[in-house]
Amino acid sequence: MVVDTNFYMNLALTEAWKYQGLTYPNPAVGCVILGQDNVLLAIEAHKKAGEAHAEVLALQVAYASLSENKEILNLSKSSDIHNYLLQNHNNIFNNISLFTTLEPCSHLGRTPSCALLISQMGIKKVYVGSLDTNKVALGGNKILEQNNIFVQNSILKKECDDLVFPFKSWQKKNFVFFKWAQRLNGTTDGGAISSSETRVLTHSMRDVCDLLVIGGNTVRIDRPTLDARDVKGKAPDILIYSKQKNFDKSIALFNVKNRKVIISHTLDEISNYKNIMIEGSSKMFALTLDITDYYLSYISPSFGGDKGFSKIDEKFQILNVQKEEKDIIMWIKRDI
Amino acid sequence: MVVDTNFYMNLALTEAWKYQGLTYPNPAVGCVILGQDNVLLAIEAHKKAGEAHAEVLALQVAYASLSENKEILNLSKSSDIHNYLLQNHNNIFNNISLFTTLEPCSHLGRTPSCALLISQMGIKKVYVGSLDTNKVALGGNKILEQNNIFVQNSILKKECDDLVFPFKSWQKKNFVFFKWAQRLNGTTDGGAISSSETRVLTHSMRDVCDLLVIGGNTVRIDRPTLDARDVKGKAPDILIYSKQKNFDKSIALFNVKNRKVIISHTLDEISNYKNIMIEGSSKMFALTLDITDYYLSYISPSFGGDKGFSKIDEKFQILNVQKEEKDIIMWIKRDI
Repeated sequence: MVVDTNFYMNLALTEAWKYQGLTYPNPAVGCVILGQDNVLLAIEAHKKAGEAHAEVLALQVAYASLSENKEILNLSKSSDIHNYLLQNHNNIFNNISLFTTLEPCSHLGRTPSCALLISQMGIKKVYVGSLDTNKVALGGNKILEQNNIFVQNSILKKECDDLVFPFKSWQKKNFVFFKWAQRLNGTTDGGAISSSETRVLTHSMRDVCDLLVIGGNTVRIDRPTLDARDVKGKAPDILIYSKQKNFDKSIALFNVKNRKVIISHTLDEISNYKNIMIEGSSKMFALTLDITDYYLSYISPSFGGDKGFSKIDEKFQILNVQKEEKDIIMWIKRDI
Repeated sequence: MVVDTNFYMNLALTEAWKYQGLTYPNPAVGCVILGQDNVLLAIEAHKKAGEAHAEVLALQVAYASLSENKEILNLSKSSDIHNYLLQNHNNIFNNISLFTTLEPCSHLGRTPSCALLISQMGIKKVYVGSLDTNKVALGGNKILEQNNIFVQNSILKKECDDLVFPFKSWQKKNFVFFKWAQRLNGTTDGGAISSSETRVLTHSMRDVCDLLVIGGNTVRIDRPTLDARDVKGKAPDILIYSKQKNFDKSIALFNVKNRKVIISHTLDEISNYKNIMIEGSSKMFALTLDITDYYLSYISPSFGGDKGFSKIDEKFQILNVQKEEKDIIMWIKRDI
């Protein structure tokens, strides 16, 4: 394997995909930092909105490594890390290279601007995957270049664009992904499928979704709660996509606090939401084909069950596949 | 993600798994080299018996990087690379660290001993995953230590043991793996499933298998050739595991040169072979459960077909999963 700029950008990409779906309304971003002798110092990713950006986390870890002072690792607030770095960097980052899957932000949002921070650290080279087209945050590269930093764009551009696509969709309209858990032999029935770790991940996803779309049969048969209790998160609103309007209101999902449940025979309500997860199987897959951007499959390495996705012919592109604890987490999109 | 010895060993592991099944009778081995300032210089793997070992390939790439002389990259014979390194290293490898998933070999086989080569290069530290228990090749660590190299064993031991397991099985008896291609929805029927790149990989596997086990129905319905023509390789012997003895001998697989075709209602013949691939679906899976060591699944990111593995309850551990061009290549073993 060739160890080059693509290799390092790929490390940033792999780390970032672990948090895809969890960073809303922020983009999933990965960052790698190389020391002045090209030593690999940090591989970090943005994990959750309100927490530090990938670049800040990577600078934090790189600082601890270079300075051999671990004190900075006790800081968790992004503004605290920014301030610590600004006060203590002492040119320790001179001649350092930074790889980021997305152009560093230029704006003071919930955290101070990454582009400005990078510029103030004495960093020499910045390698960027996708450009930021968000009106509020764009212009990061310009700030870097004005500070005499060498900037190279479009490293693994296609892969970085795929990673940031949900974020760009939120800017324009909304992002819709279809999520399901299956066994290796394709079945989706017959009780619990995913490991406990993967179920926690699902709850984390629900926590940041504002709408969850499910079919009427799922409600009637599974009688689910569909909240985010495993991560003490907020439950998303629910759209039950069903021609039939009558449901047993003692089913748990109807009785979750601060949740709106919509029952509708259309998907029109989706336009009122930004980050939308669909959960279902064959029938729902076919019905939502035109509105779905990405597909997220949790594959348990097991055989069992009877039924799965059938009577569908469809090809996908693999965006990312990783083993996460015991299961496979795979993001795909239709190959059209 | 923490950048530590486990991280670097994991890079070596990931690279090595790409060639699992292709290195017979040699082990799949990965090697990573870090420069004296811990710069990542090389990530290589052993690809095929008779070709250079992972350590030699990694030293070759690291030399080209350190010396900025690319001449060495034109060499492909292992002995040529050895000789070039011995004559030209000029202490360029002083203070360098090497990670290898398997203890470096101690013996002059088809290629000179890796342990001796490493010792002569001035390398400072060697991190090892699994110990080599092969009677001919063991003792590599001892050679290193006698040459004052710091050796640390058992880095990601479980993962490295899983990687080298087929090799250790060949030493004792044989290694049996069950391979199938499926779509994401679990189906194995309905025509071509894998991408052309994955089909080439299957032919490369057949080239190094000495026996391929299939069921009678596969022969009758698919009328396959089951050779390695895509890689101009040798066709493995075939065991048709079937109660019925009569087959149409005009079927292509019966007419491949230098191939023995055995038709048997038992699997006893397996004991006469070392590296054995089983191809099949549900029925063959159940019949070979007791003799199969690993399972290899090629997953195409598509929906289609009708039938796959059914009426089986089984749990697996994921050994390795990677995207290879368009498909997923996954090695698993039963979780028992």
